[in-house]
Amino acid sequence: MTDTDHRPAADPATGTVAAEDTTAPDTTVSAPVVDLNADLGEGFGRWRLTDDEALLSVVTSANVACGYHGGDPATMRRVCEGAAAHGVAIGAQVSYRDLAGFGRRTMDVPPDELAAEVAYQIGALQVFARAAGSAVRYVKPHGALYNRCVHDDEQARAVVEGVRLAGPGLPVLGLPGSRLHAAAREAGLPVVAEAFADRAYTAAGTLVPRREPGAVVHDPDLVVARALGLARDRRVVSADGTPVEVAARSLCLHGDTPGAAALARRVRAALEAAGVRLGAFA
Amino acid sequence: MTDTDHRPAADPATGTVAAEDTTAPDTTVSAPVVDLNADLGEGFGRWRLTDDEALLSVVTSANVACGYHGGDPATMRRVCEGAAAHGVAIGAQVSYRDLAGFGRRTMDVPPDELAAEVAYQIGALQVFARAAGSAVRYVKPHGALYNRCVHDDEQARAVVEGVRLAGPGLPVLGLPGSRLHAAAREAGLPVVAEAFADRAYTAAGTLVPRREPGAVVHDPDLVVARALGLARDRRVVSADGTPVEVAARSLCLHGDTPGAAALARRVRAALEAAGVRLGAFA
Amino acid sequence: MTDTDHRPAADPATGTVAAEDTTAPDTTVSAPVVDLNADLGEGFGRWRLTDDEALLSVVTSANVACGYHGGDPATMRRVCEGAAAHGVAIGAQVSYRDLAGFGRRTMDVPPDELAAEVAYQIGALQVFARAAGSAVRYVKPHGALYNRCVHDDEQARAVVEGVRLAGPGLPVLGLPGSRLHAAAREAGLPVVAEAFADRAYTAAGTLVPRREPGAVVHDPDLVVARALGLARDRRVVSADGTPVEVAARSLCLHGDTPGAAALARRVRAALEAAGVRLGAFA
Amino acid sequence: MTDTDHRPAADPATGTVAAEDTTAPDTTVSAPVVDLNADLGEGFGRWRLTDDEALLSVVTSANVACGYHGGDPATMRRVCEGAAAHGVAIGAQVSYRDLAGFGRRTMDVPPDELAAEVAYQIGALQVFARAAGSAVRYVKPHGALYNRCVHDDEQARAVVEGVRLAGPGLPVLGLPGSRLHAAAREAGLPVVAEAFADRAYTAAGTLVPRREPGAVVHDPDLVVARALGLARDRRVVSADGTPVEVAARSLCLHGDTPGAAALARRVRAALEAAGVRLGAFA
Repeated sequence: MTDTDHRPAADPATGTVAAEDTTAPDTTVSAPVVDLNADLGEGFGRWRLTDDEALLSVVTSANVACGYHGGDPATMRRVCEGAAAHGVAIGAQVSYRDLAGFGRRTMDVPPDELAAEVAYQIGALQVFARAAGSAVRYVKPHGALYNRCVHDDEQARAVVEGVRLAGPGLPVLGLPGSRLHAAAREAGLPVVAEAFADRAYTAAGTLVPRREPGAVVHDPDLVVARALGLARDRRVVSADGTPVEVAARSLCLHGDTPGAAALARRVRAALEAAGVRLGAFA
Repeated sequence: MTDTDHRPAADPATGTVAAEDTTAPDTTVSAPVVDLNADLGEGFGRWRLTDDEALLSVVTSANVACGYHGGDPATMRRVCEGAAAHGVAIGAQVSYRDLAGFGRRTMDVPPDELAAEVAYQIGALQVFARAAGSAVRYVKPHGALYNRCVHDDEQARAVVEGVRLAGPGLPVLGLPGSRLHAAAREAGLPVVAEAFADRAYTAAGTLVPRREPGAVVHDPDLVVARALGLARDRRVVSADGTPVEVAARSLCLHGDTPGAAALARRVRAALEAAGVRLGAFA
Repeated sequence: MTDTDHRPAADPATGTVAAEDTTAPDTTVSAPVVDLNADLGEGFGRWRLTDDEALLSVVTSANVACGYHGGDPATMRRVCEGAAAHGVAIGAQVSYRDLAGFGRRTMDVPPDELAAEVAYQIGALQVFARAAGSAVRYVKPHGALYNRCVHDDEQARAVVEGVRLAGPGLPVLGLPGSRLHAAAREAGLPVVAEAFADRAYTAAGTLVPRREPGAVVHDPDLVVARALGLARDRRVVSADGTPVEVAARSLCLHGDTPGAAALARRVRAALEAAGVRLGAFA
Repeated sequence: MTDTDHRPAADPATGTVAAEDTTAPDTTVSAPVVDLNADLGEGFGRWRLTDDEALLSVVTSANVACGYHGGDPATMRRVCEGAAAHGVAIGAQVSYRDLAGFGRRTMDVPPDELAAEVAYQIGALQVFARAAGSAVRYVKPHGALYNRCVHDDEQARAVVEGVRLAGPGLPVLGLPGSRLHAAAREAGLPVVAEAFADRAYTAAGTLVPRREPGAVVHDPDLVVARALGLARDRRVVSADGTPVEVAARSLCLHGDTPGAAALARRVRAALEAAGVRLGAFA
């Protein structure tokens, strides 16, 4: 874990960590290493959602659902075993306790409860990761919790407290410039920045909000091209047409829609063909 | 953990481990050490059930609810911190997933799901035990799962598999002669026998089923006297009036009824006054 | 609802209601009317399972999940609106409270709790049926509760009590000869027998247990042929090769497997081509 | 239901219904009729919270928990039977789906889901109210949903849509001046205003926010005196010492704290001694 995303920001007190702050120019000279992460194990009991087997042969890091928005224990065990077999890094995808809403509904959970809920989920996953001969190597919030922690300092700190309860030095995967990353840095935890090949970026390097037109890129060819740009050049064309630098150690691939696994496979193939080295960050 | 309950049975293949098999005559010569265990942290969110603070000053082992029949993460954390502060051993009280029924309704859970559910609960508790500077030192099934595993080999083995997934060598606290103990022995796990001062015993040393009259002893004085007999002499008066040997390293105290904490305190005081040494088994 | 399946059995006290007891010879002279029922709305939140739109154009009765094994409120509303638009009768598919197990795990729920849980589910569905301009016209237990009520008198009576709490005279759809039907008859509720085109029958007209080989018919052509025999002739070839009479006012089609909707469509087309009149029983 | 709180506001379009708008000067000339409402049935399974039996002999309206923040089906049934026996009006206390947080955590539930969830809860309660020979006579949101609907128009409208799905003309009990009341009036539903004897009021007749010092009145004598003032004179001393008019057809009593039932009994006795007539509003 030498990725420079992990260094403390120059001035964490400002609370305005821009995406650029997480670039790592010195390590990107010749052969960038890029991680591909995706959400796995997001079914629950009888219900299936993600094509876990297919995704395990594509990603280098698996964000495994821990039972709060999806992910029953038997599925968690199976996904951990699969990840270990494929050499895929296991991360805890922690969520609000909201099976009915798939963790997509923001909740005003008091910080002490939220911290404990995050730790609970990580601990449950650790059992299956260990039993599979691996370990939980990072934490990434899911859905509404992810979005909330971009700007909500209190919840971001609660999530970080939960991560620390679960173990020392667990990296936090998330959006560069988020309050989550700021809180993690303050707590001495490594942070890892991710980017999205299927999301539009502003000229400032931040995501175009989902409610705005064009926020999501649907054209598979375009997604593949943007993934290549992000991975190889740390650069993407912003919504106003200008190129913008987006430094991210990890690319997030989506796995819960029809055709998602096939698209993920295309992205990986394109990166490999372009000589991008793929590897987990933790 | 030198208690001889932990040794593998002479003949685990028979599957007919009687209560007497768990006696430890050689270690009980002069000063028996007895553990007092009780269920703690059995509230959920807004609801409280057990007087955790009071019980932590009485017991030597705390069976902590892990979220499946009770026990939210914040409560688990608090109880683990309290147990660590009081020097009380932390055990995972694992249950069927049944908040609505408080884990008291038998469920036909397929073995692979049950094993994973047990491991999930233990793992979640391990986080809070570790964060409190302690560890999960044993596992005890709760309610309907406890009762089912007395006689159901398949579920007993599934619980034991779950325990093994969660860590090596975790002792299983339960009823002597149960299928759970047989399965644990077969798997090489230590077993610890418990007895109940407020339950009637048959002349054969087994519990009088709850549905029969007189199965539960309600008179506090009698409960204290029986606890003393069980702890000091490993003996109790059976339902037909004859004394019967009941060897148990641990006495189970109940904590979820009005007056329970007060009665538990009386039991402990009586044992201490009689020179019984109290101490956790793990 | 003049179907003679609804009449009390000649001797409900015997507890051995055979499938034949539910035949209605006087009404089957020339043009039998057959109901096609299937489970609908069995997704939950983000997760989808049944192709509700496709099935609504095939069945005459929809067993709508009520939230205990599947079926969130928004889905219940949507399915009720669709059923009303298609002229499909709405039934409450009641279950054990077991989202994690999809209602497929038998539970020892005390009768008073079970009765209240059944009534709760029916009441919740009634709102959406009424709001769609329809009504809940029958009740059918799901999964493990269905199977348990074939032989368990206590739970069968509890389910029937729950049905009666929810309204007067609601028909109970189930297996002929089941304790559920016996209990419903005793309580004065109409009973409706169903048959399964994809299940093997014994020469006595009962289902071959699922654990036995050949219990489930997988060949689509055979399923269609058997559906036709059951609907037109009230007859099916039993596992030992002899024809057996199976009188059922309703045929159960499965909707939760790939290809299920297509097979259901084929069955309906075959019945219509053979002049079988299709119609709900309530 | 002749209470004028139920009339549509003069100008529902303004959306700024002040507390004063809900006064009913013409009906308060000599003998005001006041309703006493409290939350009941807020246990869940093994856990008990409210002293339902005691409260049923005090209140004239029972806000019955419907399973989303508390209230299992068997409890709902028992409370409805008790309410019917005591002549207490039954109301549906609807909540976010949040057992772990007791409905006290605000959630961003999409309006269509929220409407369906509200209708689901009311429908479930209607079964037990009807079976007890009564009916659900009004709806009151619980906890975080109550608070959110004071100012959030979208969620207020969703709740009102849920109420309308469940039946025509169901009154909505809530805070005067709330968006909930405005939305209910727009939809043609009767609204009923409630006041709190244990909460401080501003000089404008609104509640002092809980986070401010002195927001909650703890002195039982003071609570009784304020209840009397609110019931008899529709007036209370505001936080700055000036009397303020607070017109409310119903007083909310709290039942979930130790001593709550005793205090509720004192309030009722004081009102009766002062000649205040007590009666449900629906």
